[in-house]
Amino acid sequence: MTTSPRADLYPTRGSGETVARPRRAPTVWGEHPGPLSRQECENYAANGFHTFDSLLTAPEVVSYLAELQQLRDDGELRTSGYVVREPGSERLRTVFDIGRTSATLAALVASPRLTAAAQQVLGSEVYVHQSRINFKSGFGGAEFDWHSDFETWHAQDGMPRPRAVSISLALTENYAFNGPLMVMPGSHETFVPVNVTDFAEQSQRLHRITVGIPEQRHLEELADRHGIAQITGPPGSAVMFDSNLMHGSNGNITPFPRANIFIVYNSVENVLEDPFAASHPRPRHLANRDFPPTG
Amino acid sequence: MTTSPRADLYPTRGSGETVARPRRAPTVWGEHPGPLSRQECENYAANGFHTFDSLLTAPEVVSYLAELQQLRDDGELRTSGYVVREPGSERLRTVFDIGRTSATLAALVASPRLTAAAQQVLGSEVYVHQSRINFKSGFGGAEFDWHSDFETWHAQDGMPRPRAVSISLALTENYAFNGPLMVMPGSHETFVPVNVTDFAEQSQRLHRITVGIPEQRHLEELADRHGIAQITGPPGSAVMFDSNLMHGSNGNITPFPRANIFIVYNSVENVLEDPFAASHPRPRHLANRDFPPTG
Repeated sequence: MTTSPRADLYPTRGSGETVARPRRAPTVWGEHPGPLSRQECENYAANGFHTFDSLLTAPEVVSYLAELQQLRDDGELRTSGYVVREPGSERLRTVFDIGRTSATLAALVASPRLTAAAQQVLGSEVYVHQSRINFKSGFGGAEFDWHSDFETWHAQDGMPRPRAVSISLALTENYAFNGPLMVMPGSHETFVPVNVTDFAEQSQRLHRITVGIPEQRHLEELADRHGIAQITGPPGSAVMFDSNLMHGSNGNITPFPRANIFIVYNSVENVLEDPFAASHPRPRHLANRDFPPTG
Repeated sequence: MTTSPRADLYPTRGSGETVARPRRAPTVWGEHPGPLSRQECENYAANGFHTFDSLLTAPEVVSYLAELQQLRDDGELRTSGYVVREPGSERLRTVFDIGRTSATLAALVASPRLTAAAQQVLGSEVYVHQSRINFKSGFGGAEFDWHSDFETWHAQDGMPRPRAVSISLALTENYAFNGPLMVMPGSHETFVPVNVTDFAEQSQRLHRITVGIPEQRHLEELADRHGIAQITGPPGSAVMFDSNLMHGSNGNITPFPRANIFIVYNSVENVLEDPFAASHPRPRHLANRDFPPTG
């Protein structure tokens, strides 16, 4: 018995020439009430991101930083699969699935401050696809190459459409010079496939890679068309961005480290299927499959 | 027969604990006529740098970029000792002693536009200590760690005092996100020695290093006290900075490369002696000894 192949609106990880294609889905799914004004929703649709001057109070920032310090000192976590270290170092870079690591962080992940904004642009209920807390050291914290999250989530996690948002909350000051998030505003309108050969080569070369990095000619084209914006701001500021927005970050030779909390909300009408371009789905701390029914 | 040891106001490359000390020389040597206003001179004395909105015309920028392209394509240069490549790549990063490589660049190096500003703050005639043209690739151009040029010029080249200035002229746009020059404003007032053990370790680890990188605790202290400023600006803009100003630059994952011309003017009253902390002086393209008499 054979089954008919699934429709795949965003083919990627092929071996031929990669061709960038327009996105085939809205960015803002209808008009819904929520914390963003109509103008802010329009800007989000056009640029693919929205910045919040302050989404965490000062005491919250202090508390989450303390939480982060505890996680970094936790011997058990340091040896589990839920952490990532700085390349070539023992320094901890990322702890995943933060809803499971502490009640404080679980409460933040479920906070309406965040979910209401995600629901508003996604036009539905949402659930957590991935969450993590990141620490990027000073004095040589590593860069993160340009990528679209959706390309990876589609290929490796089976996310059908770009109907998900990421919210990144700053716990330290994001200066222009300590490796802040960089985005190409408007790039979320273009889907850039990744060549499977490049992906394999990059994975081997960089050791750490779990995302697909587009060919340079696509990045040049997008950067020429859209330019680059840096997301800077004080502790407590935040940015929400579309799952298909091209983003990355430079390394950081300054003494000023960066820490942030990163939560991905996916629409309940966009739950994960089998991967579109991988033989096995990734583990739960990278791609949660414990989602509510789509109703 | 023994000779009495030279006075060394800036001991460095020792093996003991490094202690940061106040600078023991002016930054602006008296009041002299020149292109900078009195206020600009005062700011230069306080911050250790001065930015020029436009020091090159648009046609000049085009001409120097063409010159740079020719130098990068020059097979002879590519195999000589006057060039530096990107770490782990064949891509050319730096060509030294640009006054000897072309008449166009020689004319720029000697231009009163540059020398008059250097003479004004140094309070004397000047000569060229070092000159180079730099190309920093996009897509992973390497970072350059924090350092004071004077520490290296004193230790390895025998420059007695910090009575020299560097002028960096932008040939491409220096954005905040493509690895621009970073400085710690006011840090030129502090001399930070480098431990010889660290220097040897760094030289071995980084392969390419020719400067001394201070210990992190000194950099943390200076950054906390002075903060960090990025020097950004369009092609043709420039910055002049003191030889003892702490500076560095991040890597560059963006597609936008950076190119600049870098010229160091030293006071004729501060010519090179024997190195203060090295057995042999460095080659001429790094430390010119063809200086005029001090008169």
